[in-house]
Amino acid sequence: MIVALAGGVGGAKLALGLARVLSPEDYAIIVNTADDFVHLGLAISPDLDTVTYTLAGIANPATGWGIAGDTFGFLEALGRLGGETWFRLGDRDLATHVERTRRLAAGEPLSTIAADFARRLDVGPAVIPMSDQPVRTIVETDEGGLDFQDYLVRRRAQPVVRGFRYAGIERARPAPAFDRLLDAPGVTAFVICPSNPFVSIDPILGIADVRARIRRHPAPVIAVSPLVGGAAVKGPLAAMMRSLGRPADATGIALHYGSLIDGIVVDHADDALAHAIEGPAVRVAPTVMRSLDDRIALARTVLTFAAALAGS
Amino acid sequence: MIVALAGGVGGAKLALGLARVLSPEDYAIIVNTADDFVHLGLAISPDLDTVTYTLAGIANPATGWGIAGDTFGFLEALGRLGGETWFRLGDRDLATHVERTRRLAAGEPLSTIAADFARRLDVGPAVIPMSDQPVRTIVETDEGGLDFQDYLVRRRAQPVVRGFRYAGIERARPAPAFDRLLDAPGVTAFVICPSNPFVSIDPILGIADVRARIRRHPAPVIAVSPLVGGAAVKGPLAAMMRSLGRPADATGIALHYGSLIDGIVVDHADDALAHAIEGPAVRVAPTVMRSLDDRIALARTVLTFAAALAGS
Repeated sequence: MIVALAGGVGGAKLALGLARVLSPEDYAIIVNTADDFVHLGLAISPDLDTVTYTLAGIANPATGWGIAGDTFGFLEALGRLGGETWFRLGDRDLATHVERTRRLAAGEPLSTIAADFARRLDVGPAVIPMSDQPVRTIVETDEGGLDFQDYLVRRRAQPVVRGFRYAGIERARPAPAFDRLLDAPGVTAFVICPSNPFVSIDPILGIADVRARIRRHPAPVIAVSPLVGGAAVKGPLAAMMRSLGRPADATGIALHYGSLIDGIVVDHADDALAHAIEGPAVRVAPTVMRSLDDRIALARTVLTFAAALAGS
Repeated sequence: MIVALAGGVGGAKLALGLARVLSPEDYAIIVNTADDFVHLGLAISPDLDTVTYTLAGIANPATGWGIAGDTFGFLEALGRLGGETWFRLGDRDLATHVERTRRLAAGEPLSTIAADFARRLDVGPAVIPMSDQPVRTIVETDEGGLDFQDYLVRRRAQPVVRGFRYAGIERARPAPAFDRLLDAPGVTAFVICPSNPFVSIDPILGIADVRARIRRHPAPVIAVSPLVGGAAVKGPLAAMMRSLGRPADATGIALHYGSLIDGIVVDHADDALAHAIEGPAVRVAPTVMRSLDDRIALARTVLTFAAALAGS
C-alpha cells in the first residue's frame, strides 16, 4: 500500500501518475483541506476537488482547477445580481459544492462525502481528506493575516508572506481512513507529492501526531521537490521561501522536511544541488509533468526509489 | 397606484401586461411566497423569480419558469454525484438561489433582496414578496399533507386534494412595502391576477389582516378568473376545485373571493356563466394570454374596468 500526501495541482499530477501504475486497492491519497473555505455559503474544497477531478479524468488541464468543458452561466448571472465572482466556479463544478454543502449540513463527515463522490466519478484509489474537522490556513503577510484563497486568488499572491497559521488544527484529528493507514503494516511508502510544503503538506503533517506516526512507521518517506531551477512549476512557493529567508530550491525543501523524509527526488535542472542536500537520499529525475507519460514516469521513479530505500 | 397580487406563471403574464401600460412608479406587484422552499440547501422562491424574470424579459416562455436559454450543466453534474434532480434548476437561475440564500443567511430580509435583484435586472415596478417571514403551503391530500412543490413537481399534482394549510402564516406580517400600500390613499385598484386562489392568492390574503385592509381600502378590487371553459390554463386548479366540491369555473372563483372583490373578469368562453355570478360586477373579455399583445390588452381591460367601478 502506497500513501500519497497531496495538495492541489502539482500534487494531483503525481497522484494521477501513481494511480496509473498502482492497483486501486494498494493506493490511497491523503488530500490537504486547509485551503477549504466557505464562499457564497458553499463549502469549497479546492485540493480535494482537483485531486478527485484529476483522477476521474474530468479535470480542466488548462487551468488545473475545475472541470474540462465546464460552462459559466452561473457566474455570469451571479455577476449581474451583484454577487462575488472573483472565485471562478463553473456550472458543473458547482454541483460538487452545493451537494457537499447540503450533505455536510445534514451531518455527514467530509471524508464520507469525498469517498462517495470519488466512487460516483469512477475514481479507483481512496481519496481521503486529511481531516473531517475544519483546518484553515491563514497566511501571515505584511498586510496582516489573510485566508489562503483570499491571499492566493483575490490578492493574486501579492502580499509578502511572513508565516503561516493553521486555524483549528489543534482540534483536528486525521480522517478515520487516514488514521488507520498511519499504523497499517501494509503501507510500504509515504509519498509527499510536489505540493507547496507550507500550505499543502504542513497542514496534513500538523494534525495531532501525524508527523510522528509517519516518522515512526517503518515505510520510507519520499518527497518530490516542487521547486525546479529555483521556481515553482505553479504557484507562489518560491516567493514564499525567499520572504521567509529559506533557500528557494530543492535544498530548502529538504531542510524543511528535515528528518521526516528518507529520500527526495529533485529535478535534473537541480542536479548541481544534489550534493548540497544532507540527510535524505537524493534521486535526480525529470519532475516537470507536462504529459500523462511524464506523470507515470515520475510515479515509477518514486516507487523504485522507495523500494530501494526500504531494502537498504 | 395599482397593486397586483400574483402567483407564478398566469399571474406573471398579467403582471407583465400591466407593466407595459403603467408607469413603474405607479405599479407594485405583491408576490406569493408560500410556494417557497429549501431545496439542496438553497432558498427557492418560484413565484418571485417567475415574476421577476418575466418583467426583466429573461423568463423562459416555453416552460413558464427559469431563464430563457439557460444551460443545465449543474443539474447534470449533480445527477452524476447522486443529488436530487427532480426540481429543474438551470445554471443561470441557480445564481438567484445561491445569492438569495447567502444574503438571507447574512440577515437581509427577503423583500430587500428581491428589490435589489429586480433593480439589477432592470425591472421597473416594485416586486414585493408578500412577507419577509416564511409561509409554506401544505396541500392536504388523500396521501397526507405534502409540501407544495413536492405535490406539484415531484408528485405531478396526482394526489387528490382535500384542503390547504399555510404553515407559519399566523406569525407572518406583510413585507414593509406591502404594508404601506395596504393603507396608501394613492392606490386606485387592487388586481388579483389569474393565479391559483388556493396556493397563490389565499396565502397573501391570509397574512395578518391583509384581507380586511384590502376590503376596507376604498379602491376597487378586481379579480381575473384563472379558469377558462372549466379548466386552468396551466396547473391543477380545476382538479383542486372539483375535489373540494366547488364549481370548477368562473362562478367558483367569484364564490371563493366573495365580498372581497368588486369585479371579476371572465373569459369569452365563459360568457354563459356571467349571469350566474352574484355579487361582483362582471366583465367578459379574452383572458388567455398567448402573446405580449394579449397581456397588454387584458391589462387595459382590467384598468378600464377598475376605473369604471371606482367611478360608480
